[in-house]
Amino acid sequence: MTALTYIPFAKGHGTGNDFLILHDPQDHLELQPDYITQLCSRREGLGADGLLRLVRTTAHPDTRAMAGRAEWFMDYRNADGSTGSMCGNGARLAGRYLVDAGHHLPGHFSLATRAGLRDLHVPADPHEDVAVDMGRPNLPRPARVHVTVGERRWPALHVDVGNPHAVVFTNDLTQAGDLQQPPRITPAGAYPHGTTVEFVHNLGSHHLVVRVHERGVGETPSCGTGACAAVTAARHVGPQPAGQARYAVDFPGGRLHVDVDTDGAMTLNGPALLTARGILGLQASPHVLARAAPAATFD
Amino acid sequence: MTALTYIPFAKGHGTGNDFLILHDPQDHLELQPDYITQLCSRREGLGADGLLRLVRTTAHPDTRAMAGRAEWFMDYRNADGSTGSMCGNGARLAGRYLVDAGHHLPGHFSLATRAGLRDLHVPADPHEDVAVDMGRPNLPRPARVHVTVGERRWPALHVDVGNPHAVVFTNDLTQAGDLQQPPRITPAGAYPHGTTVEFVHNLGSHHLVVRVHERGVGETPSCGTGACAAVTAARHVGPQPAGQARYAVDFPGGRLHVDVDTDGAMTLNGPALLTARGILGLQASPHVLARAAPAATFD
Repeated sequence: MTALTYIPFAKGHGTGNDFLILHDPQDHLELQPDYITQLCSRREGLGADGLLRLVRTTAHPDTRAMAGRAEWFMDYRNADGSTGSMCGNGARLAGRYLVDAGHHLPGHFSLATRAGLRDLHVPADPHEDVAVDMGRPNLPRPARVHVTVGERRWPALHVDVGNPHAVVFTNDLTQAGDLQQPPRITPAGAYPHGTTVEFVHNLGSHHLVVRVHERGVGETPSCGTGACAAVTAARHVGPQPAGQARYAVDFPGGRLHVDVDTDGAMTLNGPALLTARGILGLQASPHVLARAAPAATFD
Repeated sequence: MTALTYIPFAKGHGTGNDFLILHDPQDHLELQPDYITQLCSRREGLGADGLLRLVRTTAHPDTRAMAGRAEWFMDYRNADGSTGSMCGNGARLAGRYLVDAGHHLPGHFSLATRAGLRDLHVPADPHEDVAVDMGRPNLPRPARVHVTVGERRWPALHVDVGNPHAVVFTNDLTQAGDLQQPPRITPAGAYPHGTTVEFVHNLGSHHLVVRVHERGVGETPSCGTGACAAVTAARHVGPQPAGQARYAVDFPGGRLHVDVDTDGAMTLNGPALLTARGILGLQASPHVLARAAPAATFD
């Protein structure tokens, strides 16, 4: 192997949606997309749905303005190396890591993301649910699109949860077939940067069952923003509800809960479990550009 | 997370067949099968087809007798936690790790395995092929068995390469269908501990194309002992060859070469690439039993 830069890492998952965490408090690492793809490759890397690089808000030029309100910035990347603005399960796991690794006290605190500040609640007990504020989803134009997989085509609702979603309702989730490849969307220009797609079976009584194709990843066992998009769509097409509500959202990987406040703001709740933690040797340049000193800081 | 025991680890692959390496020179770790399953789980662990625990032959009671001829013992485990006697791609990757991490000089050396000593050739250049002596495969009784997947049934040859194999010849590898689950073998008692199954398309001119179900794992992109089993079966059913020969064996994950000596002894050659290296925090008891001091030795 070529020269290695050693940095603290962790791996974990929320309802099967798994992430690599790289602890880079001083923003030393500039990860190239093809190296992220390799790290996230299941067999030719460590393997994950996405990568969370955790940087102190004081150390990153884009987040210094938030430094008074959040100590840490989650630089989220999809498995294909692309930048993601927000990831609900990822934010919950980042919170769990920061508390378990001793970088933050448990309880309520904010995390900086590309979609802005997100409030977390991380209990001290690692087996209790971690909650993250997901903001108020909205329905951008065009509100109605179509999703095609193979020979089948469904109407879908366009929902924005800090990242784009297309939500299809169906009473048979097997009809969606193989969701590993991105479904086709019409009109073609509706999502200039692609979209995550949810297939939702609404069982009523605030209970949804969902399969998801995540933009830049493929079919994943669970998706936090997808849970909120599914709830948003279900509330939009159903009778207009009032007051607070809690929804159970079942993915192949397990159950998430979405709490909806009176003003439409959503909180995502669910398990967040760290499965490995250590120090990882990253291959040095050209895949990783260390901006200043090697990031062997233990912060 | 609970208390962690930190030990050096690596991850790597040979033609897509991937392994976790745990560096445990003093034989401090007693890994429980359910913890190995969790470590090898793709989403709920680090993920791998198998785990290689590397122990000094002088430190392990079963290998002290080999200590004059091999410095290291490869304790190989399948992803389901079961013990494996030998793994060709795993042995090649173990050799690459020992050289790259500075625990052995490059060149020819022996590795202790549960199937006995295996000679490795590990070039200094990490991009060159690593070779491992696979011994002389044999054909135990019953020599002929049958393999069933779904509605289809094929005759197969029983081959032993230190571990058991059933080799099917077909001109259409897609017919094998889904090889994630173990194919059914008749007679039922032919393999008391289960078997790895190869579907082989013999293109002639010493060129085989193979898909494999690995015992205890599922369908994998490549299998070292499987390559030798396929070559053994091809030589058994075809015209009896004489002299040395080199076979190209193409798996979905890439190409391995098998060299056959005049006495039938086989050498497996192919790439062995480390993709990550570092220190891993393992959860302490009851999943891992540290026999003596914590295994934080850097040897």
